[in-house]
Amino acid sequence: MNEFELIAKLTQALPTNPSVVTGAGDDCAVLDLGVADKLFLFKTDAVVEGFHFTRETPPEKIGRKALARCLSDIAAMAGTPAAALATIALPPDFEPEFIQKIYDGMNALARAHGVAIVGGETTTNPGRILISISLIGSVPRGRQILRSGAKAGDAIFVTGELGGSLAERHLDFEPRLPEARWLAEHFPIHAMMDLSDGLGGDLQHMLKASGAGAELLKTAVPVSRAAKLKAKGGSATKPAFVAALTDGEDFELLFTVASRDAVKLLDAWKKKFPKLKLSCIGKIVAGDGILIRDKSGPHKFNAPGYTHFA
Amino acid sequence: MNEFELIAKLTQALPTNPSVVTGAGDDCAVLDLGVADKLFLFKTDAVVEGFHFTRETPPEKIGRKALARCLSDIAAMAGTPAAALATIALPPDFEPEFIQKIYDGMNALARAHGVAIVGGETTTNPGRILISISLIGSVPRGRQILRSGAKAGDAIFVTGELGGSLAERHLDFEPRLPEARWLAEHFPIHAMMDLSDGLGGDLQHMLKASGAGAELLKTAVPVSRAAKLKAKGGSATKPAFVAALTDGEDFELLFTVASRDAVKLLDAWKKKFPKLKLSCIGKIVAGDGILIRDKSGPHKFNAPGYTHFA
Repeated sequence: MNEFELIAKLTQALPTNPSVVTGAGDDCAVLDLGVADKLFLFKTDAVVEGFHFTRETPPEKIGRKALARCLSDIAAMAGTPAAALATIALPPDFEPEFIQKIYDGMNALARAHGVAIVGGETTTNPGRILISISLIGSVPRGRQILRSGAKAGDAIFVTGELGGSLAERHLDFEPRLPEARWLAEHFPIHAMMDLSDGLGGDLQHMLKASGAGAELLKTAVPVSRAAKLKAKGGSATKPAFVAALTDGEDFELLFTVASRDAVKLLDAWKKKFPKLKLSCIGKIVAGDGILIRDKSGPHKFNAPGYTHFA
Repeated sequence: MNEFELIAKLTQALPTNPSVVTGAGDDCAVLDLGVADKLFLFKTDAVVEGFHFTRETPPEKIGRKALARCLSDIAAMAGTPAAALATIALPPDFEPEFIQKIYDGMNALARAHGVAIVGGETTTNPGRILISISLIGSVPRGRQILRSGAKAGDAIFVTGELGGSLAERHLDFEPRLPEARWLAEHFPIHAMMDLSDGLGGDLQHMLKASGAGAELLKTAVPVSRAAKLKAKGGSATKPAFVAALTDGEDFELLFTVASRDAVKLLDAWKKKFPKLKLSCIGKIVAGDGILIRDKSGPHKFNAPGYTHFA
């Protein structure tokens, strides 16, 4: 049983109650807490030393990243974050200054997005630093965007550029909160999520939730400069395009709209967010799985076996 | 700088926004999310292997305890829990059955209190198990009970019996949710919190938040059978009364009411909750700190130096 199979099994039998609009399985849970015009978003996310950062990562950036990942999930639902709690687990005898700097990084990002930090705790975790953030946000009732709404014929978009995040960007990325809200306000977005595990894996989750497949155009996928540099330098274990599909931690938005809205959306985006690339990378099709089309034709995407792509 | 000094420093500078009614420092944060008759409670709490349980603890009880601690904090505000998220960090290659059993224990307690579990994550923490729970609850607007409301002259009450929790009860305690709601509905409770660090330390937090002191009557403090047994058995490093003040993990309610309400409250309690002991253990006084009165007179309570009490 792999991680995703286990999660699927666990989430089948979770206790529920009438406040639950959307439970486990999307970027955030969606709750109806009795406000006429709003629903609430609830999310938790943890970063662990050795996996999401190292002991050498500046503590401000650790704190920033921990919160930014959670904010990115609120963005993925087109929501607005309100309040966060921070649990910081550290080996014993950590310097207070180190913890202060974790908070400094977190606080600065929270202020930039109007988020209150309303408590949490510091606790002991011998061996490594672990930070868990919980976040409450809101979304206008009916405007939350799930992963499950993609329809055959939809155009598929991603913001920014993908791959190579580990070089630097995973510590400095901007959660796409204003961009996601603008999208939901101006276009009938069918499905949206943030890219945390890599386009290849995350798009599969969206397709599975939506009961659909996708066809991507290889040349349309925006590959980051960092991924290209790494591939050129000879230190990479995979070609730049594969890195863009599988590196993870991009924290860009992946979304779909009806194809008739695609050009209008691209034009409006360029005016509104001239500095942030938006790419139409393919379309939703009937069926399942991902096909990638290059000059030699369509290829079935399958993460482990995909390294034959150059 | 100790843990409490660090937290005091960190919480001074936290980002805030208009949704925050009560931020860090009480049992839960209190948020105004725009519902006319309700405020929302937000809390996170973590349990760590080696501190809150061991590798030998049955996984169902680990899951139960993780959620129960958080529910106890909702009880401390006289609130009703609504939805929880669970973050489970485990050494790699844990058996799926073990994780399933953690969830089983958590789910059963959640169902008993009408709490939905709406997601979370499993992540890797080499070396030890760590579970962090986040909880959203609600309280009728204006009926949340803080730690800071104790007034000189108040009678001080505790539910249940204190000390010796580590023998068994720390894994099986019942969060005092119905009891706390009943108290808040029927009596003007001035201050309330749950006992997690032990009466001696937790009462100090309440007194500090309230700008007051307390005088306890030694014979009135309810000492648990487990603490007495341990002290008698000769294996204890402290007398049973000291255990009741310092062992921690009691998860009983500590609260104060005006002394004129004390007898009426005790009488009503006995009718409503005949199986759960309620003890009036002393009174709030002007000043600060805790005095404990025994047959030889009043003694200043000071946790590390307190073992001279027999």
